[in-house]
Amino acid sequence: MDKGGARGTRERLVVIGGDAAGMSAASQARRLRGPDELEIVAFERGHFTSFSACGIPYWVGGDVTGRDQLIARTPQEHRERGIDLRLRTEVTEIDVSASRVRARDVESGAESWTSYDKLVIATGARPVRPPLPGVDAPGVHGVQTLDDGQALIDTLTATEGRRAVVVGAGYIGVEMAEALINRGYEVTVVNRGQEPMSTLDPDMGRLVRRAMEGMGITMVNDTEVTKLLTGDDGRVRAVATEDAEYPADVVVLGIGVRPETTLAKAAGLPLGDYDGLLTDLAMRVRGHENIWAGGDCVEVLDLVSGRERHIALGTHANKHGQVIGTNAGGGYATFPGVVGTAVSKVCDLEIARTGLREKDARRAGLQYVTATIESTSRAGYYPGAAPMTVKMLAERRTGRLLGTQIVGREGAGKRVDIAAVALTAGMTVDQMTALDLGYAPPFSPVWDPVLVAARKTVKELRSSDF
Amino acid sequence: MDKGGARGTRERLVVIGGDAAGMSAASQARRLRGPDELEIVAFERGHFTSFSACGIPYWVGGDVTGRDQLIARTPQEHRERGIDLRLRTEVTEIDVSASRVRARDVESGAESWTSYDKLVIATGARPVRPPLPGVDAPGVHGVQTLDDGQALIDTLTATEGRRAVVVGAGYIGVEMAEALINRGYEVTVVNRGQEPMSTLDPDMGRLVRRAMEGMGITMVNDTEVTKLLTGDDGRVRAVATEDAEYPADVVVLGIGVRPETTLAKAAGLPLGDYDGLLTDLAMRVRGHENIWAGGDCVEVLDLVSGRERHIALGTHANKHGQVIGTNAGGGYATFPGVVGTAVSKVCDLEIARTGLREKDARRAGLQYVTATIESTSRAGYYPGAAPMTVKMLAERRTGRLLGTQIVGREGAGKRVDIAAVALTAGMTVDQMTALDLGYAPPFSPVWDPVLVAARKTVKELRSSDF
Repeated sequence: MDKGGARGTRERLVVIGGDAAGMSAASQARRLRGPDELEIVAFERGHFTSFSACGIPYWVGGDVTGRDQLIARTPQEHRERGIDLRLRTEVTEIDVSASRVRARDVESGAESWTSYDKLVIATGARPVRPPLPGVDAPGVHGVQTLDDGQALIDTLTATEGRRAVVVGAGYIGVEMAEALINRGYEVTVVNRGQEPMSTLDPDMGRLVRRAMEGMGITMVNDTEVTKLLTGDDGRVRAVATEDAEYPADVVVLGIGVRPETTLAKAAGLPLGDYDGLLTDLAMRVRGHENIWAGGDCVEVLDLVSGRERHIALGTHANKHGQVIGTNAGGGYATFPGVVGTAVSKVCDLEIARTGLREKDARRAGLQYVTATIESTSRAGYYPGAAPMTVKMLAERRTGRLLGTQIVGREGAGKRVDIAAVALTAGMTVDQMTALDLGYAPPFSPVWDPVLVAARKTVKELRSSDF
Repeated sequence: MDKGGARGTRERLVVIGGDAAGMSAASQARRLRGPDELEIVAFERGHFTSFSACGIPYWVGGDVTGRDQLIARTPQEHRERGIDLRLRTEVTEIDVSASRVRARDVESGAESWTSYDKLVIATGARPVRPPLPGVDAPGVHGVQTLDDGQALIDTLTATEGRRAVVVGAGYIGVEMAEALINRGYEVTVVNRGQEPMSTLDPDMGRLVRRAMEGMGITMVNDTEVTKLLTGDDGRVRAVATEDAEYPADVVVLGIGVRPETTLAKAAGLPLGDYDGLLTDLAMRVRGHENIWAGGDCVEVLDLVSGRERHIALGTHANKHGQVIGTNAGGGYATFPGVVGTAVSKVCDLEIARTGLREKDARRAGLQYVTATIESTSRAGYYPGAAPMTVKMLAERRTGRLLGTQIVGREGAGKRVDIAAVALTAGMTVDQMTALDLGYAPPFSPVWDPVLVAARKTVKELRSSDF
């Protein structure tokens, strides 16, 4: 049992979870404090560190040629930076009162305690895996980890059939649909929601559905999967719903993720409505001076609604890690919150959103107007000008921007950043109409589509102003 | 002589200039006030209205197939909306004390006075045409109007030689270099500045130069043209500098533009340091309740430096027209100012800037730090990830963002909008590091290049903080 008794004045930072948030925190703390001042021990139950889960669909689809490309920093690189990284070692308990964690060697099963002065919880998220009959059959795959991605690729390589069913039509689902199309599969997406991409309002989701259908993807909406049917060989052979069966040589689950906070819950740490850890703006777990948490296992403040949300995104995890490492290393930094920006693509369709959807605004008690416009990504006369649709929400009376959704082709998606910054700054849509955005015919119409949307939203505000 | 005596209570709005600012103003005023309430007379000395001068390089280069594509709204369309549009009619005098303008029919030479209740001056800009020997020779072309563009295309079609010299390396110069490359010319650009794109700092301009040289364009910097040499046939045959002669079958002047304010100056209206009209934020000419001005003939407030600047850009002209038309139509709107955003491309190189360059900051008395980073437009492992360089300036002590410059390939340029909105909102670079920007591997590395630049700028600020 390692009590760290011989450490003298040297502090020990323990990190649970070796992906983006955990290892960014470890690296940043190391930058601020050398090994003489701070010992850093990081536990990771898997084989890899600092990998891009967001890149898995592109690896499966063949755009990315190998797994190693998705690894931002290898275990060896972390160790060379003076981080005591223990792979295939799973933390099984956090003992807050004694400031120690218990870890188990996955191979040998041996367990031991490690004490900490400072603790970082970066346990990530776990994919939603519905308790359906057949969900564990061969041929049914999640895509959360590199091991998952490798298993799926192995199945795709070994399978002769070309029929794939994706369960779920959020960003993982649509990205996996693209990946499977790129590998030559006939793809059916079965989706519980009214339209794909429930992170958009349904009227914008409809545009995504139409585009996906135009790519040859079969979209089945408003439908729950009831079970996964297996063949005589035990492998999955179809996805069943109440009304139909969809033959499947391979099934990909892309239903979403939940915070992995089993350990934290058992330790009595504070969790929010989505079972994510609750922290202050310095990413310190509330009520615990020496424990930080970040990445997919925490809830974050939504700056638009003023409420906590759960958003699993590598870009947030990296920022959290940076903030945690700075604070754990004796500096000062905060993560002010999110506005809920996301961008994804399915083949050449770009899908983006930031801020609140209509239902988020209603839930937050906000009254709002909406406007939707169609424009093009470049000047209409410039080659490659592609149609794009922008929907905007603004608060009644104040005119404050509440959200923006974009569906279009090349050049459409990243325009959401304009709205993301405007949301962060608390701008009104009237202020936005005057934004000095980059204009030249290859880049934008003379009125950028975001400005056109802002102008129309201003008009809607005026006519609602009673 | 038309005194408008029979108009009764109907007001007359006179517009000088039929391009973006003038016709947007006319159209917006018409939307708010019907012909019974407001007569609108617009004078335009050329053949066209509401055209995209910014599109001329792409028409010349062949990306845009015809002149008509560059016309947003034809004279006929304006007339159908109840605007009394008088083409080929040049205003030769503004008589402010009598509220009237004198106009001359370009064909017949006949002159007459038209009185106004409200006046909009939208006389645009005129290209700088240096008083060089040979500048008026056949084969030497400007590219300010559609007539200019047609004349250049006619020359290119009729000319057998394939050597082109572009004088000037601002955005018009580099875009014309691309156009001529696309038409199969050997292109030499002769540039007075140290590097091309003097709207960037020279260290960023150097990246543009290298890329242009990589495209086979011959760049001659730090060099003044002394004269244009002509052959026995009177046509241009070479561009001469102090040290050399550059053979040319065609010469394009892309030296920039100045406000066309000859009329305004003669009328005693207030002009600024750049000879542009000075207005208030409602685009009213200072000291004149019933005269507005907008587009390339005005100076605009730079929100970063707090000073007036001259920026000739269609996107501003359209916004000015919208504001003027609203005010002249009895509503209320303002144009708050610019942050100086511009984006352009030369072949696949994207060039963007917003805010202050180093020399602008010095001129404004600001102390600043800079940081320059290299990153990629997409996740490094995603196909098509292209290198991009981002330079950022922030004010010492306050940390306020002062400017951003970007040079890169596909996906780089429009990222300048992130900085443009942040500048408008007065954000610090530290605030920017937490921006919730759209992330997915096909769109961005997990840290967007703009965030990477902001982070490095924060570090520079800290080390400068004494």
